[in-house]
Amino acid sequence: LTYKKTADDLKGRIERELERFMKEETDLSLDDPLVRDIMDALTEYTLREAKRVRAILAVIGYQAVGGRDLEKAVRASISLELVQSMLLIHDDIIDSSPERRGGPSFHAYYAKLHRSAGYGGIPDRFGTNMAIIGGDLAESLAEKALLSAGFPPERTISALVRQTEMVRDTGFGQVLDLYSESLPEWTEEMVAKVQEFKTARYTLEGPLLIGASLHGASDSQMKALSDYAIPVGIAFQIIDDILGFYGDPKRGGKKDRADIIEGKRTLLIMKALELCSSTDRIRIRSALGNKRLTIREAEAVREIVRRSGSEEYSRKMAEELSDRGIAALEGSDLRKEQVKFLREFAKYLLGRT
Amino acid sequence: LTYKKTADDLKGRIERELERFMKEETDLSLDDPLVRDIMDALTEYTLREAKRVRAILAVIGYQAVGGRDLEKAVRASISLELVQSMLLIHDDIIDSSPERRGGPSFHAYYAKLHRSAGYGGIPDRFGTNMAIIGGDLAESLAEKALLSAGFPPERTISALVRQTEMVRDTGFGQVLDLYSESLPEWTEEMVAKVQEFKTARYTLEGPLLIGASLHGASDSQMKALSDYAIPVGIAFQIIDDILGFYGDPKRGGKKDRADIIEGKRTLLIMKALELCSSTDRIRIRSALGNKRLTIREAEAVREIVRRSGSEEYSRKMAEELSDRGIAALEGSDLRKEQVKFLREFAKYLLGRT
Repeated sequence: LTYKKTADDLKGRIERELERFMKEETDLSLDDPLVRDIMDALTEYTLREAKRVRAILAVIGYQAVGGRDLEKAVRASISLELVQSMLLIHDDIIDSSPERRGGPSFHAYYAKLHRSAGYGGIPDRFGTNMAIIGGDLAESLAEKALLSAGFPPERTISALVRQTEMVRDTGFGQVLDLYSESLPEWTEEMVAKVQEFKTARYTLEGPLLIGASLHGASDSQMKALSDYAIPVGIAFQIIDDILGFYGDPKRGGKKDRADIIEGKRTLLIMKALELCSSTDRIRIRSALGNKRLTIREAEAVREIVRRSGSEEYSRKMAEELSDRGIAALEGSDLRKEQVKFLREFAKYLLGRT
Repeated sequence: LTYKKTADDLKGRIERELERFMKEETDLSLDDPLVRDIMDALTEYTLREAKRVRAILAVIGYQAVGGRDLEKAVRASISLELVQSMLLIHDDIIDSSPERRGGPSFHAYYAKLHRSAGYGGIPDRFGTNMAIIGGDLAESLAEKALLSAGFPPERTISALVRQTEMVRDTGFGQVLDLYSESLPEWTEEMVAKVQEFKTARYTLEGPLLIGASLHGASDSQMKALSDYAIPVGIAFQIIDDILGFYGDPKRGGKKDRADIIEGKRTLLIMKALELCSSTDRIRIRSALGNKRLTIREAEAVREIVRRSGSEEYSRKMAEELSDRGIAALEGSDLRKEQVKFLREFAKYLLGRT
């Protein structure tokens, strides 16, 4: 498959560039062991095994509208991975997640360091505080990476404006998501907004448009990329929520029930609540957000949802959205090779490959 | 005084521009009541009574190197006030501060909203989480303000690179500051680094150089501004730490002892520890970071420090630094009017006017 080969090649380039950039920035930083330590922690965190989807899409967006300087595009694309570090570091504080990408979350790393060094004060607070600052540092590095990639100034600016809008929209998605766990009632429209802002705009549309901006894309090219990215992104989120609800076999132990315990509002849940009987509705509602949910109770709720027809509805909706996104590429004036990549990528996201 | 009149005039312009920008950005944001609410909260927070020192210095830096478009400079300068919102919002989480600029801190505002609305979950966690996101939103707005101020692309980029370096260096200062409350031993050199990175670079040098970059300043102009800003900024921090230690009469109640209770390491303390007797040294050390410090104990420690000669030493050091900073302006090719402003501003910071 073109998709797999291209993605693997780009992933390698992106990671080598990330490593080079972080080393350079560390050398330029204040010469102090404590500062070097947080720069090293950010470097290790950012370089942990990851798919690099956002950086890859930025390069693809750039090439899709005719960009030919791969090296420069890769240099700019790492900005997306540093934004991702910022968002993950802050998100893990928000969710109190102890782990990320096969290692400790950023705040957990610093809490542990504090504990084992026997410093004064409270380890968890120290960890959270270092992670707030660490995320902010990652953000400043992200900007620097894009600003110093060597693209013409006007294009750099238009890409960076897109990036600030992407970060802003992700923030809006996070705000809605936080409320979704706090508000008693929640509509399908609100779920759709969270999916659009927290995933579709951030994971797909933002990176593609940032990349395209670096080559000065036309309005119709931007529109085609956007019309592809939003529905495909929402489709991906719908499928991901189904996996999260039924428990990804890759996740072990309690993580299996995490999405139900968190009370995550998804299309799958919203539709199940609509379709099921009123007794079942009460059982679903009492399970969502229940911190003491047992395996047996989780399984019962899964069975109700399975029977309700909501999963079928959600999967169908995801496929329709994905097809609609792919269709937006067909009549466009984007380069054929990248259209092929994006078509295969959409199928990969839905687990159809 | 030229200083006061100019500063007041600029403050008014900056605040009007901030208001206009935030209104425009709110209108451009996702049309959702929860999103509008956080944009409104950010607007209210940013517009609270403040000195606008950083934005004013950005305009002065721009004018000092020959810039004449006041309106555009003001438009760019509000970026500094939005960075300030980001840093204050995150800093108040770090310090668990309930108040800021005569109102609730950002996290306290959302914790209260959560409590009074009776949402599900823990109010303080909700508040902290909204403030992490709110700070990140403020940062994206700061970038957007600078990117859209209308300066030539190359100059916008060089100003923004400076701004990312300023935010990064402030982060380094915060990291050192966090460790300073955790590590048992601390040197005068480390105190100086915190002062340089957390205050001098952020409050003075960054804004001046960002403003100067917007007019394409020469290396010698940049150097003169920097040679002024760093010593004057450190001098200001030394004086501010003395006020904090002896208790600013403007602060009431327990805030009076806050700096001692926090265990803040300052030049005043470092020098007192060096100069006083070994019995007094033990008394100072046991007071620093003591959460149950009484008014009487605080007063006793203040008396030891007063007697030690450390205050005199610190004040003298601050004056020398300030004079050195002012001297850097004298032989420079900066515009006379702004040199006058900066001279008076340095004196104002040291409370000498």
